[in-house]
Amino acid sequence: MADYRAPLVDMRFIRDEVLNAEQEWQAMPATAELSAELADAVLEEAGRLVEAELFPLNQSGDAQGCRFEGGEVRTPTGFRAASLELAQGGWCGLGGNPDYGGQGLPKLLTQAFDEMLYASNAGFALYLTLNNGAGLLLDAYADDATKARYLPRLYAGEWLGTMCLTEPHCGTDLGLIKTRAVPDGNGQYAITGSKIWITGGEHDLTDNIVHLVLAKLPDAPAGAKGISLFLVPKRQVREDGSLADANGVVCGGLEHKMGIKGSATCVMHFEEAQGVLIGEPHQGLATMFTMMNYERLSIGIQGLGLGEVAYQSAMAFARERRQSRAPGGATEPEQAADPILVHPDVRRMALNARAWNEGGRLFAAFVARELDRAKYHPDAEVRAVAADLVALLTPVAKAFLTDRGFATTVEAQQIYGGSGYCVEWGAEQFVRDARIAMIYEGTNGIQAMDLVGRKLVRNQGAYLRRFAEQMRADLDGDAEGDCNGSGKGNGSDKGEVDNDPELIQFRQAAVDELARLERVSEALIEAAKEDAAAAGAGAHDYLQLLGYTAYTWMWWKAARAARQGLTANGKSGEAFYRAKLITGWHFLQRQLPQSEALERQIAAGSEGVMALDQNLF
Amino acid sequence: MADYRAPLVDMRFIRDEVLNAEQEWQAMPATAELSAELADAVLEEAGRLVEAELFPLNQSGDAQGCRFEGGEVRTPTGFRAASLELAQGGWCGLGGNPDYGGQGLPKLLTQAFDEMLYASNAGFALYLTLNNGAGLLLDAYADDATKARYLPRLYAGEWLGTMCLTEPHCGTDLGLIKTRAVPDGNGQYAITGSKIWITGGEHDLTDNIVHLVLAKLPDAPAGAKGISLFLVPKRQVREDGSLADANGVVCGGLEHKMGIKGSATCVMHFEEAQGVLIGEPHQGLATMFTMMNYERLSIGIQGLGLGEVAYQSAMAFARERRQSRAPGGATEPEQAADPILVHPDVRRMALNARAWNEGGRLFAAFVARELDRAKYHPDAEVRAVAADLVALLTPVAKAFLTDRGFATTVEAQQIYGGSGYCVEWGAEQFVRDARIAMIYEGTNGIQAMDLVGRKLVRNQGAYLRRFAEQMRADLDGDAEGDCNGSGKGNGSDKGEVDNDPELIQFRQAAVDELARLERVSEALIEAAKEDAAAAGAGAHDYLQLLGYTAYTWMWWKAARAARQGLTANGKSGEAFYRAKLITGWHFLQRQLPQSEALERQIAAGSEGVMALDQNLF
Repeated sequence: MADYRAPLVDMRFIRDEVLNAEQEWQAMPATAELSAELADAVLEEAGRLVEAELFPLNQSGDAQGCRFEGGEVRTPTGFRAASLELAQGGWCGLGGNPDYGGQGLPKLLTQAFDEMLYASNAGFALYLTLNNGAGLLLDAYADDATKARYLPRLYAGEWLGTMCLTEPHCGTDLGLIKTRAVPDGNGQYAITGSKIWITGGEHDLTDNIVHLVLAKLPDAPAGAKGISLFLVPKRQVREDGSLADANGVVCGGLEHKMGIKGSATCVMHFEEAQGVLIGEPHQGLATMFTMMNYERLSIGIQGLGLGEVAYQSAMAFARERRQSRAPGGATEPEQAADPILVHPDVRRMALNARAWNEGGRLFAAFVARELDRAKYHPDAEVRAVAADLVALLTPVAKAFLTDRGFATTVEAQQIYGGSGYCVEWGAEQFVRDARIAMIYEGTNGIQAMDLVGRKLVRNQGAYLRRFAEQMRADLDGDAEGDCNGSGKGNGSDKGEVDNDPELIQFRQAAVDELARLERVSEALIEAAKEDAAAAGAGAHDYLQLLGYTAYTWMWWKAARAARQGLTANGKSGEAFYRAKLITGWHFLQRQLPQSEALERQIAAGSEGVMALDQNLF
Repeated sequence: MADYRAPLVDMRFIRDEVLNAEQEWQAMPATAELSAELADAVLEEAGRLVEAELFPLNQSGDAQGCRFEGGEVRTPTGFRAASLELAQGGWCGLGGNPDYGGQGLPKLLTQAFDEMLYASNAGFALYLTLNNGAGLLLDAYADDATKARYLPRLYAGEWLGTMCLTEPHCGTDLGLIKTRAVPDGNGQYAITGSKIWITGGEHDLTDNIVHLVLAKLPDAPAGAKGISLFLVPKRQVREDGSLADANGVVCGGLEHKMGIKGSATCVMHFEEAQGVLIGEPHQGLATMFTMMNYERLSIGIQGLGLGEVAYQSAMAFARERRQSRAPGGATEPEQAADPILVHPDVRRMALNARAWNEGGRLFAAFVARELDRAKYHPDAEVRAVAADLVALLTPVAKAFLTDRGFATTVEAQQIYGGSGYCVEWGAEQFVRDARIAMIYEGTNGIQAMDLVGRKLVRNQGAYLRRFAEQMRADLDGDAEGDCNGSGKGNGSDKGEVDNDPELIQFRQAAVDELARLERVSEALIEAAKEDAAAAGAGAHDYLQLLGYTAYTWMWWKAARAARQGLTANGKSGEAFYRAKLITGWHFLQRQLPQSEALERQIAAGSEGVMALDQNLF
């Protein structure tokens, strides 16, 4: 059956030995009170919670799914009790603004909790992810009265938030939305329209649901520049915070989906529902995008979490399953067959999973660190650098983590043989649950277009130069390229690296990949000047290439920390460090060769993809 | 919604313009009466049948699944009627031995029907695939009385056959099976044991079911050399062919699976069931493997068929769906947005699907041609060459076609955005239905081991040299490398190719890939001499590399035929030929660069994958 233990050892290694989080946190007033010890206590408790409360509901939640009965949505058995327990434990407000009852923990910490949530129960996790997003958005744009009325309840998990964007005729192209908002003369608005694919649009977990809805005001300009954002509660809230009448918000039904069946994906009808404008009129899309960087990282982490639980479960199977003999002869001759982990091809699949998961975990933590710096760092220059990195890396985090996460669930399923296809073993659910993460929150194709169009070509490579500076400085041993010197703890100087033949190879791979990325970036910027289709034609492969480059950097960091741990008798232990180096080596040898193919594919340009007449497809 | 039309134009192109099937058939006495015209009539009728009868049951069959009630299995609504219609139309005996009522059609024709079956309804198709396999096996190994009693009924679809191999504790490693066969003194055997994952083990489509069961005789040697094969009918059959008592065959339940839900996957218990020995005692595995080459190609075609229907359905969606504007500005300014096929990244995904499907279709037909030559050709040398190619390419056909087919269903699903994840659109079912093909009939990892272990290393590259000879001769314009000169119709001599700059590039790519394959093969054979793990460590990537090489050859053939068609005003039409060349060009530019990465990955050897201690996974 499926198996999951929160990967605390690797999370600690990343936090304490690779990213030196404690120093990082202490350099920022908003997080200065957070110690590694406290962070550890939070994650240990989080691990206990998800293992005991959420993971046992994962398969049953998938089997039951959500039910739509008389206009109401019933979540699977146990979801409400688990939701209450998480709410009471304060787990819904980890990253929230302390002024309104949030705990103000940095993303570098909360993203580890996100991974555990998705790994243990992706269908359940989404209710909390959307709630986090709604909280962030209100905190950034709502007026004080609205914040005071809603934020404490969202942070407490008493109510949950949603995002209502998509309509039947428009997903990606939000400029086409038809939902209308008419001022009611009392400072509020009457919202009318239909939305689809609304995660947690209706459910039985909380007494109220807080919808953030995109709609158009009567005087809205056409297209994407005429969209405004509104808060529309399921039930009206009185000034004293008590619940008043039902608002004009009706759930029209549930989608039947491939996976994440415990998550209620709703059709929502707003019928002159009372709403409050959030942010400026017509600025709804820009307002939404503030939140996107946080949300997109979270969705990336859905891929990571599912990759991790898929790997762990496959290894539980592989340790028990015996088929045939090791290539060099029986390793356990007293048994009828050897465990399947003796077979090189099974080990290859397992190492693929490990390498993607561990590289992805470090990359997600790295992006989270930059998100924290961009938000909390006292030094404006550090904030600016971090903001550039976040802008560049967010689409990569969303798309590359989910692409690799899905591939990992598929490869983990393969390790089971036929059992992987049978529902009872759980492996196939991870595949189904992971698939959506490549699609929603902006498809991975849209992420790639965002990366190449907005983040690379439009600013002529400015973000990429930031990235290259940081990476190169780190590879050169200059305090990890950290503007605030937080890399001191990593302290490897160039001499030390030059003398370690294993690290030299990790370093050289990173140097080579960075050079490749810069070369390809320059060519793509150049091609886009003459050819409107160049960016789109290269987008997918370019995002992958940036992903491979970033992971090569991450593996260099991990390898360096593991080497230091081996030398200094570090805390994670010798077996862990050796495994880390072997896994990183697998990445270099068996995954990274893809980057050269990507370079060639991008070089093909747009002529080929644009050549076929539309009617011939 | 989902959409499917049998791809008759491409099937005709392959048959008539690339492989010159008519000449091929006329060169072999067993198929000499088959003309291109007759083949066309068969496939047109087949297309009508699957479009009208099977495809409409595909989504409903998935939604309903099979039910287990009181020991009996009910297939989804409509399956029995469709099964009767196919049986009455003679579609269950297309490839069967004419001496027993089969139609004796060559694989090159029947594999096109296989593709249609899988594309239109993969869950349904499996009942027929297993029946074909059982028929082949009985035809090859049963005694005359058994053949006379069973084959006509199987070919007529009055009864259906199954294969009973796997037991709960052993899938791949059949040497571990526990099912016993005890002679009853009357020339028959009493079979006792349990089997799992038995496709069509019990159902309501026919009055009898004919199980082919692997079991061990009392005096069996241990392991894989002690397995025998038995025919065990669900109901006994009297000498006059009428049905007698029920045999000791009981269905214990159904598996709940990720997909192919219309296919009944059964737990089967044999309780002193009467059976007949098929073939020699203890030779059951060898007997089975005769059939495997045919079956494995069919399962590969499952990947192809699902890739095709996924592509066609995605294009039906893409033609309707409008989001955003073309990169160079609106193509349909009078509409609110352009169709999504204007976007380069959507076109990239669509061309990926086309290129894998069309390359795969030609490769499957090519392998089928070799199967036919190996079975029917009057010239022993031609048979011998074909048998070597079949041995080498069968694991590739099974694994590479299913890997690419699954990837194609996933990429097609991506084109839909969120709709691709919702059950009603049908795209997600193709993904679920395609996933199993990478697992059953020998996992793709097992196929790779078979390829590298048995087909490459064991004979020191002999099969590969045959492959290289054929490919090189074809590239050199020597009558397509066909021993029987059937390539005359292709007739491109070297001069013609040298003068066509487009064909030169296809040819050069094939030359380069063949050289790469030979280089890698030699290195792998060498490495395996010293290192027992070398074959296993390189197996997966080597199979992929051989797949890319074979597809490059196929694309050269297709491009050459398309060029000739353009010049000669050939029958498929100019738009078709242009699209074929554009699609082939996409393969060269955007898919083939992977082969270089594979070469590097294989060169990494086994050290990395074997380094991690088993307990650290």
